[in-house]
Amino acid sequence: MEEKNRIPYKIYLEENEMPKAWYNLRADMKEKPAPLLNPATGKPMTAEELSVVFCDELIKQELDNDTRYYEIPQEIRDFYKMYRPSPLVRAYCLEEKLQTPAKIYYKFEGNNTSGSHKLNSAIAQAYYAKKQGLKGVTTETGAGQWGTALSMACAYFGLECKVFMVKISYEQKPFRREVMRTYGADVTPSPSMETNVGRKILAEHPGTTGSLGCAISEAVEVAVSSEGYRYVLGSVLNQVLLHQSVIGLETKAALDKYGIHPDIIIGCAGGGSNLGGLIAPFMGEKLRGEADYRIIAVEPASCPSFTRGTFAYDFCDTGMICPLAKMYTLGSGFIPSPNHAGGLRFHGMSSTLSQLYHDGYMEATSVEQTSVFDAAEFFARTEGILPAPESAHAIRVALDEALKCKETGEEKTIVFGLTGTGYFDLKAYEAYNDGRMVDYIPTDEEIAASVAKLPKVE
Amino acid sequence: MEEKNRIPYKIYLEENEMPKAWYNLRADMKEKPAPLLNPATGKPMTAEELSVVFCDELIKQELDNDTRYYEIPQEIRDFYKMYRPSPLVRAYCLEEKLQTPAKIYYKFEGNNTSGSHKLNSAIAQAYYAKKQGLKGVTTETGAGQWGTALSMACAYFGLECKVFMVKISYEQKPFRREVMRTYGADVTPSPSMETNVGRKILAEHPGTTGSLGCAISEAVEVAVSSEGYRYVLGSVLNQVLLHQSVIGLETKAALDKYGIHPDIIIGCAGGGSNLGGLIAPFMGEKLRGEADYRIIAVEPASCPSFTRGTFAYDFCDTGMICPLAKMYTLGSGFIPSPNHAGGLRFHGMSSTLSQLYHDGYMEATSVEQTSVFDAAEFFARTEGILPAPESAHAIRVALDEALKCKETGEEKTIVFGLTGTGYFDLKAYEAYNDGRMVDYIPTDEEIAASVAKLPKVE
Repeated sequence: MEEKNRIPYKIYLEENEMPKAWYNLRADMKEKPAPLLNPATGKPMTAEELSVVFCDELIKQELDNDTRYYEIPQEIRDFYKMYRPSPLVRAYCLEEKLQTPAKIYYKFEGNNTSGSHKLNSAIAQAYYAKKQGLKGVTTETGAGQWGTALSMACAYFGLECKVFMVKISYEQKPFRREVMRTYGADVTPSPSMETNVGRKILAEHPGTTGSLGCAISEAVEVAVSSEGYRYVLGSVLNQVLLHQSVIGLETKAALDKYGIHPDIIIGCAGGGSNLGGLIAPFMGEKLRGEADYRIIAVEPASCPSFTRGTFAYDFCDTGMICPLAKMYTLGSGFIPSPNHAGGLRFHGMSSTLSQLYHDGYMEATSVEQTSVFDAAEFFARTEGILPAPESAHAIRVALDEALKCKETGEEKTIVFGLTGTGYFDLKAYEAYNDGRMVDYIPTDEEIAASVAKLPKVE
Repeated sequence: MEEKNRIPYKIYLEENEMPKAWYNLRADMKEKPAPLLNPATGKPMTAEELSVVFCDELIKQELDNDTRYYEIPQEIRDFYKMYRPSPLVRAYCLEEKLQTPAKIYYKFEGNNTSGSHKLNSAIAQAYYAKKQGLKGVTTETGAGQWGTALSMACAYFGLECKVFMVKISYEQKPFRREVMRTYGADVTPSPSMETNVGRKILAEHPGTTGSLGCAISEAVEVAVSSEGYRYVLGSVLNQVLLHQSVIGLETKAALDKYGIHPDIIIGCAGGGSNLGGLIAPFMGEKLRGEADYRIIAVEPASCPSFTRGTFAYDFCDTGMICPLAKMYTLGSGFIPSPNHAGGLRFHGMSSTLSQLYHDGYMEATSVEQTSVFDAAEFFARTEGILPAPESAHAIRVALDEALKCKETGEEKTIVFGLTGTGYFDLKAYEAYNDGRMVDYIPTDEEIAASVAKLPKVE
């Protein structure tokens, strides 16, 4: 540990070193992500068409493939200062316990009450909704991180907030619901009887445990049919990746401060919000040919969109009322096995990340959840942080890469995203502690059946 | 907010500015806290007598009223670096929302997986237990913060950890138990059938919801009767206040860095671990006549040892097997009403703080829990942190003092201890959100009946 005197356990940027602008990765992509399509016409969605669903300023960000930097409004920067900068942690204890020559860092986004990075985009989306003079927003939440983050953001700006929470999470995580209620949000288990699409899904699949895609449909329906409301989304969209770039920008600034060049960057991937944010400035350098990094997306074996999905246009929601996005997808009807713990349960993947993966700029791998929880427990006991199951996907692969270094003797520098904490995932930890946790890998037939229903696009 | 440019939202010390020694407040007290007495002989406990229960090095710290500073062992300082320094937060948002001229700061100890300041002493006690070659330690936990902290500390040093958890908390907080299990601890609801004292209490009070005093008795019994085990305690004791001085030392260093002099320092008080730690260096200055501060202890109206207890020798435990301590006490048989949420449920108060309060160096006040949760919700929505109910006691009084400043126009500087987060207290938040939370103030008769049973001491 000769470096201990040089690099602290936790690198915190000063307030004046925090990013003043978000970075729009798309500006540096030669192959831009495919546009959202109107499912009725098969044509790219216009800003006007999108304005029924989304806030105006966010649509601008969504469609803008060219502007490299977006200044972060002062109100959002002030909010960021309440819980950011997040620490970049040197995992000295992990290195010692593994006896690896690898140098391991993680960017820890869990030190805020929402418990994850989701707040970075929630506060931005709430800000633009407020600025537009809206009354409230609707959204969906799976594991509950996004819903909690949005509730906090809406409370801060005095906006109403209606959350459709995937039913299985709603039942397994009553305390998530209470946090949202404490922040004044209205929380409904999805599918519900409150919407046409919810009633339709319940009629077709009585007893369903719900899915993100289904909750999205309900939230969009309510937003579109309620005066002064719009819909907001915590992942997948380009705008979300833009806001989340604050993670990567802070990470890079902290590394640069100490002259550290990462060899491998690892992030968990559901819809891509954390991964896209964490890798943004590094991927930018890679796209511009200024530097090279090995970038690894880690997804659950039970919901493997990158590694086993199809790169095609698909609906973002189960009810098929949203625009079509070109992405790696398992089909909008795909619902992960009920024993799947935590988030990362979306059937598709960010169009931006899908394009980058398709073009060979990054790798993807999938891991099974018992091995994810092995990593989570080891990490908790060693680094003193109880990780969210989502985050533990990245931990699993970081440990594996560090152990490879141990074999080869290579002193690689590994950076991974520790997106959040597991305080609301203790039902899953309990199953793991009791030895009741099982893995589930969908069969080829299941995935093929779901993908067969992809919409036809010219 | 003209100061925004000068004082950041969060003041983090650099790693090399972190305290290298704990401060022993007793060294500066003219009237020392009364010694622990052997209940059998009525004489002060000797180190030898205590060594059956406690670790040797900790006994030395417990009995030492003279040494001003204890160097923090390097292993503990390394562990501290994983989650410390904790931020001293300038509550700009709170000030703006309250429209108060007061300047409000809080020292936030919740950014670690145990969720509170308890880890500061847990890691110290685990370290000395390990150094002594012990196999494991036993303890009690009420709300669960201390048990979680000790589980983490024991996992780090590879010690066994047996926790007796007050039954009502065990039932209301299954997820606390799972965190402890994830860290490898053994958790038993108290009173249990595993100990003589537990069986006796259950026979006398079938259906009891348990108390800290009772869980202490069980933990001590198991420690004394198990090979290679000792008992550790998360509050009340002098040694705990010594370790927790790291909170106050960091707070003072951060304030000094920006030339800030606090007028009022506020801490919640159960057994006194956080309050004693937070105020230590400030009280030291006050005792030495170097500076003056208004120091306020805040306790629950349902367990008001300072404000309605008696300053006398009493047992620290219900089973009456522990040494006698001179303290403000409600009687060792006092059990707070079952509707009391969170910690701060100990019948007595640290001997050191009791002496200081008795000698007029600090004030104490009590608050009712619905008003505490009003403050908690307001704080969560404004500052973005869901506080532990314990911490919200200090928030309540900080808000009240800030509102007084609004009336008088005084620009007082208020510092309070935000001891932890409320992620495991959502049953209580649920009761509050549902409007089901009630207050309970013990009657004079109840307290008199409990105090009447105080042991006779010459």
